[in-house]
Amino acid sequence: GAKSHYYSTQMGKRVAVVLAGCGVYDGSEIHEASAVLVHLSRGGASVNMFAPNVEQMHVINHLAGKPSEEKRNVLVESARLARGNIQDLSNLSVKDHDAVIFPGGFGAAKNLCTWAVQGKDCSVNEQVKAVLQAFRAEDKPIGLCCISPVLAAKVFPGCEVTLVTFLWSNDQSINQLGCKHMSKSVGESHVDEKNKLVTTCAFMCNAPIHEIYDGIGTMVEGVLKMA
Amino acid sequence: GAKSHYYSTQMGKRVAVVLAGCGVYDGSEIHEASAVLVHLSRGGASVNMFAPNVEQMHVINHLAGKPSEEKRNVLVESARLARGNIQDLSNLSVKDHDAVIFPGGFGAAKNLCTWAVQGKDCSVNEQVKAVLQAFRAEDKPIGLCCISPVLAAKVFPGCEVTLVTFLWSNDQSINQLGCKHMSKSVGESHVDEKNKLVTTCAFMCNAPIHEIYDGIGTMVEGVLKMA
Repeated sequence: GAKSHYYSTQMGKRVAVVLAGCGVYDGSEIHEASAVLVHLSRGGASVNMFAPNVEQMHVINHLAGKPSEEKRNVLVESARLARGNIQDLSNLSVKDHDAVIFPGGFGAAKNLCTWAVQGKDCSVNEQVKAVLQAFRAEDKPIGLCCISPVLAAKVFPGCEVTLVTFLWSNDQSINQLGCKHMSKSVGESHVDEKNKLVTTCAFMCNAPIHEIYDGIGTMVEGVLKMA
Repeated sequence: GAKSHYYSTQMGKRVAVVLAGCGVYDGSEIHEASAVLVHLSRGGASVNMFAPNVEQMHVINHLAGKPSEEKRNVLVESARLARGNIQDLSNLSVKDHDAVIFPGGFGAAKNLCTWAVQGKDCSVNEQVKAVLQAFRAEDKPIGLCCISPVLAAKVFPGCEVTLVTFLWSNDQSINQLGCKHMSKSVGESHVDEKNKLVTTCAFMCNAPIHEIYDGIGTMVEGVLKMA
């Protein structure tokens, strides 16, 4: 009703969500991105979505599980998740937002940084790096899930993130990132109070999709609480 | 824990979810499909996903809001929503499932039938029609949301569906379908007891995404209750 509309427009936190395509193997993990949006909406936040206007590292045929010859653009494909309502990441202004959230999916490790192919020696997309540093400099919270915490691990040396799970605990490239690995269950998130990072494992845990949805809810709640 | 695992594998309903691509303007509406999967998971259902192995009617650039020249396959793009775990619709066996659910999105009206371009004179994909008739013949429930109830309206003359909302109530092509239009709010679903159809408006209502998520929850719950 009118009252809840007033509340959400006047009192709600303004959250930027940064996407990396549309599909777990070459873009943003779809169900993680959707869960982030549902939980932000329930929390009364107003959301703006962004993605870098660059070509995808890969286009994966998700049926065959293999790369295809196609070329796709990260911003154009991310617009599928955003129902068209999305902007070039270069337009993201930190002063207009109280927090930023990066859903997971291999797109975060292929299109936002090069971790998927270069591991600890990866580079982070310059716009993504600038966004992370700007939110940190303003002491505004940053939420990440699944594989996207590699972005924070690379940009904020020594930070605490939920990268290691039973699926990944033997991955040396993750152990070499120099961050503090916090082992959490699918339903939990970890808060790095110093760096205002909130992270959760999501699909990195082998769990039913409703538990992943709930775990992302704890991450979003943690972000909104600090925003 | 072990007990809930036992419950979901031994007692859970077996539900087929039929997708139509990946993206609101040319495929399945992503957040509707995701919400269906989360609610089915929470309800202890085991899910198999299917899509027709046909070319999409359109490929829409969701950033520009315009058709592109690309060709994409409905099954291959639906695999993005299914994280690769999807089958050709021709493999859907009614005897292996207790219910079937069709998320919305224009893909349901472009790739599963031709309602988007032919209105009341649309044709329904033969495999989709056969699936709907087979579940009906076995008295197994069918769940649909947003625009996908046009499939039921065309295949089951005189059935009751939630197609008319404040957004669509003046659309003559919907009024000409010959079904009974049940006007419901975003948080409700309608049950056509005779035809075992459960329908909800979802994104046809102009509502916050968490209300759409919850409305789809009532549809899934209605389907599982009758399955």
